[in-house]
Amino acid sequence: MHIHVINPNTTASMTHKIGEAASRIAAPGTRISATNPASGPVSIEGHFDEAISAVGVAEEIRSGERERADAYIIACFGDPGLLAARELTRAPVIGIAEAAFHMATLISTRFSIVTTLGRTGIIAEHLLQNYGFAHHCRRVRAAEIPVLDLEDDGSTALARLIDECRRARDEDNIGAIVLGCGGMADLTEQISDAVGLPVIEGVTAAVKLAEALVGLGLGTSKHGDLAFPRPKAYTGQFAHLSNLEP
Amino acid sequence: MHIHVINPNTTASMTHKIGEAASRIAAPGTRISATNPASGPVSIEGHFDEAISAVGVAEEIRSGERERADAYIIACFGDPGLLAARELTRAPVIGIAEAAFHMATLISTRFSIVTTLGRTGIIAEHLLQNYGFAHHCRRVRAAEIPVLDLEDDGSTALARLIDECRRARDEDNIGAIVLGCGGMADLTEQISDAVGLPVIEGVTAAVKLAEALVGLGLGTSKHGDLAFPRPKAYTGQFAHLSNLEP
Amino acid sequence: MHIHVINPNTTASMTHKIGEAASRIAAPGTRISATNPASGPVSIEGHFDEAISAVGVAEEIRSGERERADAYIIACFGDPGLLAARELTRAPVIGIAEAAFHMATLISTRFSIVTTLGRTGIIAEHLLQNYGFAHHCRRVRAAEIPVLDLEDDGSTALARLIDECRRARDEDNIGAIVLGCGGMADLTEQISDAVGLPVIEGVTAAVKLAEALVGLGLGTSKHGDLAFPRPKAYTGQFAHLSNLEP
Amino acid sequence: MHIHVINPNTTASMTHKIGEAASRIAAPGTRISATNPASGPVSIEGHFDEAISAVGVAEEIRSGERERADAYIIACFGDPGLLAARELTRAPVIGIAEAAFHMATLISTRFSIVTTLGRTGIIAEHLLQNYGFAHHCRRVRAAEIPVLDLEDDGSTALARLIDECRRARDEDNIGAIVLGCGGMADLTEQISDAVGLPVIEGVTAAVKLAEALVGLGLGTSKHGDLAFPRPKAYTGQFAHLSNLEP
Amino acid sequence: MHIHVINPNTTASMTHKIGEAASRIAAPGTRISATNPASGPVSIEGHFDEAISAVGVAEEIRSGERERADAYIIACFGDPGLLAARELTRAPVIGIAEAAFHMATLISTRFSIVTTLGRTGIIAEHLLQNYGFAHHCRRVRAAEIPVLDLEDDGSTALARLIDECRRARDEDNIGAIVLGCGGMADLTEQISDAVGLPVIEGVTAAVKLAEALVGLGLGTSKHGDLAFPRPKAYTGQFAHLSNLEP
Amino acid sequence: MHIHVINPNTTASMTHKIGEAASRIAAPGTRISATNPASGPVSIEGHFDEAISAVGVAEEIRSGERERADAYIIACFGDPGLLAARELTRAPVIGIAEAAFHMATLISTRFSIVTTLGRTGIIAEHLLQNYGFAHHCRRVRAAEIPVLDLEDDGSTALARLIDECRRARDEDNIGAIVLGCGGMADLTEQISDAVGLPVIEGVTAAVKLAEALVGLGLGTSKHGDLAFPRPKAYTGQFAHLSNLEP
Repeated sequence: MHIHVINPNTTASMTHKIGEAASRIAAPGTRISATNPASGPVSIEGHFDEAISAVGVAEEIRSGERERADAYIIACFGDPGLLAARELTRAPVIGIAEAAFHMATLISTRFSIVTTLGRTGIIAEHLLQNYGFAHHCRRVRAAEIPVLDLEDDGSTALARLIDECRRARDEDNIGAIVLGCGGMADLTEQISDAVGLPVIEGVTAAVKLAEALVGLGLGTSKHGDLAFPRPKAYTGQFAHLSNLEP
Repeated sequence: MHIHVINPNTTASMTHKIGEAASRIAAPGTRISATNPASGPVSIEGHFDEAISAVGVAEEIRSGERERADAYIIACFGDPGLLAARELTRAPVIGIAEAAFHMATLISTRFSIVTTLGRTGIIAEHLLQNYGFAHHCRRVRAAEIPVLDLEDDGSTALARLIDECRRARDEDNIGAIVLGCGGMADLTEQISDAVGLPVIEGVTAAVKLAEALVGLGLGTSKHGDLAFPRPKAYTGQFAHLSNLEP
Repeated sequence: MHIHVINPNTTASMTHKIGEAASRIAAPGTRISATNPASGPVSIEGHFDEAISAVGVAEEIRSGERERADAYIIACFGDPGLLAARELTRAPVIGIAEAAFHMATLISTRFSIVTTLGRTGIIAEHLLQNYGFAHHCRRVRAAEIPVLDLEDDGSTALARLIDECRRARDEDNIGAIVLGCGGMADLTEQISDAVGLPVIEGVTAAVKLAEALVGLGLGTSKHGDLAFPRPKAYTGQFAHLSNLEP
Repeated sequence: MHIHVINPNTTASMTHKIGEAASRIAAPGTRISATNPASGPVSIEGHFDEAISAVGVAEEIRSGERERADAYIIACFGDPGLLAARELTRAPVIGIAEAAFHMATLISTRFSIVTTLGRTGIIAEHLLQNYGFAHHCRRVRAAEIPVLDLEDDGSTALARLIDECRRARDEDNIGAIVLGCGGMADLTEQISDAVGLPVIEGVTAAVKLAEALVGLGLGTSKHGDLAFPRPKAYTGQFAHLSNLEP
Repeated sequence: MHIHVINPNTTASMTHKIGEAASRIAAPGTRISATNPASGPVSIEGHFDEAISAVGVAEEIRSGERERADAYIIACFGDPGLLAARELTRAPVIGIAEAAFHMATLISTRFSIVTTLGRTGIIAEHLLQNYGFAHHCRRVRAAEIPVLDLEDDGSTALARLIDECRRARDEDNIGAIVLGCGGMADLTEQISDAVGLPVIEGVTAAVKLAEALVGLGLGTSKHGDLAFPRPKAYTGQFAHLSNLEP
Repeated sequence: MHIHVINPNTTASMTHKIGEAASRIAAPGTRISATNPASGPVSIEGHFDEAISAVGVAEEIRSGERERADAYIIACFGDPGLLAARELTRAPVIGIAEAAFHMATLISTRFSIVTTLGRTGIIAEHLLQNYGFAHHCRRVRAAEIPVLDLEDDGSTALARLIDECRRARDEDNIGAIVLGCGGMADLTEQISDAVGLPVIEGVTAAVKLAEALVGLGLGTSKHGDLAFPRPKAYTGQFAHLSNLEP
């Protein structure tokens, strides 16, 4: 089984870290390829970064299709371009935010999210509402860490994350914590150990969900709104997207 | 990995069928044990059957704990006794209805449920609302098949199910169908072939979710309302449940 | 009119107290019988206790049916086994949580709940959502009192309850308080006097609702999912539940 | 106990009929007074009729207060002026729509409403949402009967109501029917007999709820937004409402 | 274009202030007439004040119809009598609360409301839910200022409002503030300058929405529940409302 | 006032038509510029088309900023890239779907949408839920017209739209119809005349809302998640988006 993990931002060190985390958790027969778009933002910290990154996600899905990948993961907590990506393939496509939410509700009745910046909290709130998990999440918390600080070994990011997770544990009346950034994929164990609650991280959760769906023989439905895009002309820099063939 | 699959009703043929379906889908390293309570209803077709069956589910969890099972599946579409069961173990416990709903939302934007009897539709409606998937399900349909007809090879159950699934496909504006009874675990492929839509069946979905959670090292949170039951006396026929030790 | 009040736990002193409270509030022509199951937990403080207690509730409904009771009350704040119980009788069956919620919305626009233990708060949250009252309840508060402390005259339970109710009054922007445990049935007046807000207790509320429904000639609908259970075999210790006759 | 039943429209024959229905269902010790405002619409069939009728409702509450009534009923299915009325008294005030909804959810999991005119259906929809019962009601149906046709013995209103109720029973997957007009207070038994489902009518339901609240010693909360109106000047034809004293 | 602005209370100084604010913001071709009912409360601070004021609103709509006004504004933050008013005219009718909410969602993802008295907060909560904006509003705050203090130049009302708005800005995680009283129509600029967030005031918002609807040729739909009232008799002091002609 | 209308697809004839419709409705002092991206899909009929088009929308906002436009309109019914666009400017940005929904709720209590293709209905459903209007919309209908058929004078698109709108009027219990495609901007009057209900079209609605916001001095909040993007590097074909200056 080949799972193609797409880091929607263009920071290679983060892609590497995400790929490592995915590989560590993958089943013996699963091959992980981790990639990021050639073009796009170095980190995703708002609606605009998200919108632009969706183009890169789509390109990486198309690239994965050429390699006949069995499943795709969109490794940014806002799940940018998720429905668009699903149109492009029969394989399952999983966002790391949705993956984390699904897993959290299977082991707890209420959870909180600890994310990077306050300004991205709204993205998590929108996802919770769209996916149906608004009532299961007590609170969206931000440790106020710029995403790329997670790439900086000297930063105090881990300590601040642990502090915020402890506050969530003590104040939020929850059973689990969801980490709200793909860049935290390597910190799950440390945070969980420090906090003493189940801590769910989306990249690893998504790998196991992808394996599950592929194992079930389930892929993105091609009946209805997730069918392949209607063939049509695209212009300009997107001309290569014209009349995509399934 | 050892997954203990609990059929909450007491019909051994159905337990066998469910166990077979679970085993077929399980990963190479996964061992499936399928069981049903010694006491309880032969089928679950309403709130009362569900309530009684929850006792048997709890007993089977305790039995599984003695064997140090790694995960549990409650193989009845109403997920009877799910939260109670979760209190009894650190392992993950997954209901087949929730499993099917989670998987359905990962491959489609809207789905319908095809279940057995109209009177059990309300159980599915309640679950959809509690789990947060009410907006993702277009319609709960019943083929009006008593559960045990699914055990009767000569019955027209399969044909009627296929008919109802085709109506769902043609009328409901959906991308996937969820089968609403554990007794349909062996029919998924036939129905999917006949209908041409992704068809999601809960037993198999739950096996893969259980493998996923175990793979992630995640189990039922013992922080909050899913912690082990507070030690206390139980009386009468339930005296053996007194002061349960984790 | 005969109202059969079922205390779902097996603590006789609590049953006695609940029966007294019910009798005090009952109309002249109403006879109260208070009972508890022979088997089950001595207190209900979680999902597991609830699930087991539902069996006893069902048995007590069947017992009440032999005496042709006119209505039933399930006197535990989680309303355990409520829908199952309704299948077993044409008489009305009322849970004390729902009773309290209904009454609270008739005299205030917003209320808070003060319950025993934090870990049972989730049960109240689920009921509020299922019954439709989630928006009417500002907050579910716990005084962190084990249920059986309410049976101990020397405990500080009352003082702690009053403290929590005062916090609710001062902080929650509410018009009424709902007491979240059947074991508080004898404390309503003291708490209300101390707090100065309407305080609604479920046992007494349920008695008056039961009288109301019986007075209206209304009983549990036998059309649809609350019809008598479909006749079927039950096995083992539940064999006596086979083919229940209406 | 004195329950003051206010018919918000000015049709005396309907007031009489409502009073009769209330008296028939009242407990032995309950005295019913039925009244209608001197000023206002002869029937309430829309938002405008409702708004004007709220003034009369308020005046009748004030009149009832002079007689020290123990409870009030607003006998129009839109519950016009309900929250305003509650500000004017320490006694409970109950609308017949809310009364019917509460009772319906105690005996069924889903109900439908059969009302008079399609254009008033939106009023029921708004109430269902505000009260929290939107998910419990399958459908709001109109028999397209002008309200005053219910006062005309020669009309086909009853037959048309029965037809619509039968359609609700057969098509809506429900356990009970709520009648959507105070003018149907005398038809409940005939309709219920003809339809074979529990039929809930609001006037009678409200009488029993009022008796229940009074029996519990509960009245409208004077803490918060239902406290007596802040003393202030009213001008013109409403000058007599200035500085109302509790 | 003629916009008739109705202050539902009877305080002329507030009507004048509201008219001034409306005129200042109106387009060159727009004529503003500001009025208040002859009869009713001098301020609106609860459900009862609202209910009575709805009569005056209706009378002022009828008065405006005689002058063939092109649009109406109900200039009290509870939007009293809004749906009733819409039945009386083909012109658009806009409440200042809804106007402010609509505008707030166009420039921010989340807002808070700062209103006068805590007891009126529930009115805003109900409107948010009915209009669909409950999820967009973080918090309803009250500065605990009686409405008529806003008419008193010597009061500390402005200072207290600014304080509360600053708390909203700093604590609520919002992008905009909605002012919750028509009497604040002249304070928007001062508050906005002091707080540094977009501040939305309903009177001015409603003027621009009214101009927008008239510009689009859109008026209140006369198809369905907002059609003109069914012709019928009104009695007593409301006899003049009988058989209203469109 | 300068309103920059962005047609997110790249079909110039549609841009022209949209610009004409916008100009016709604009106030005397309003200048409309209509544009479309150089790159992107010729029509938007699904999630993928939407995601790609968001890039072009962002580019056109940046282009408009250089011209100091006072407001922006995104003239595709899915409001693609709306929140991203808002980050890029202090001016208001309005999507035509939200514009139409806001206007519809001001003149009716319930509306239906008539859109082009069934597969895009889900986009409207998501928007309704996110914006809070899910309860106000009775039904999302599709006339099954490919978007570019609206550009083909010889097509039967208009006739089919009118048929579907009439069905909405007769079956949906609504007061107004929302047209679900920017390409219908020139058909509003014909459809409204043929159907006899208020018909709301988003381009024109958005122009008037944009004028309203500008008139009020309100622009996109720069406090919180709609603040300008955090300065950062963009790579590849998006390098020109690095460190955008407000």
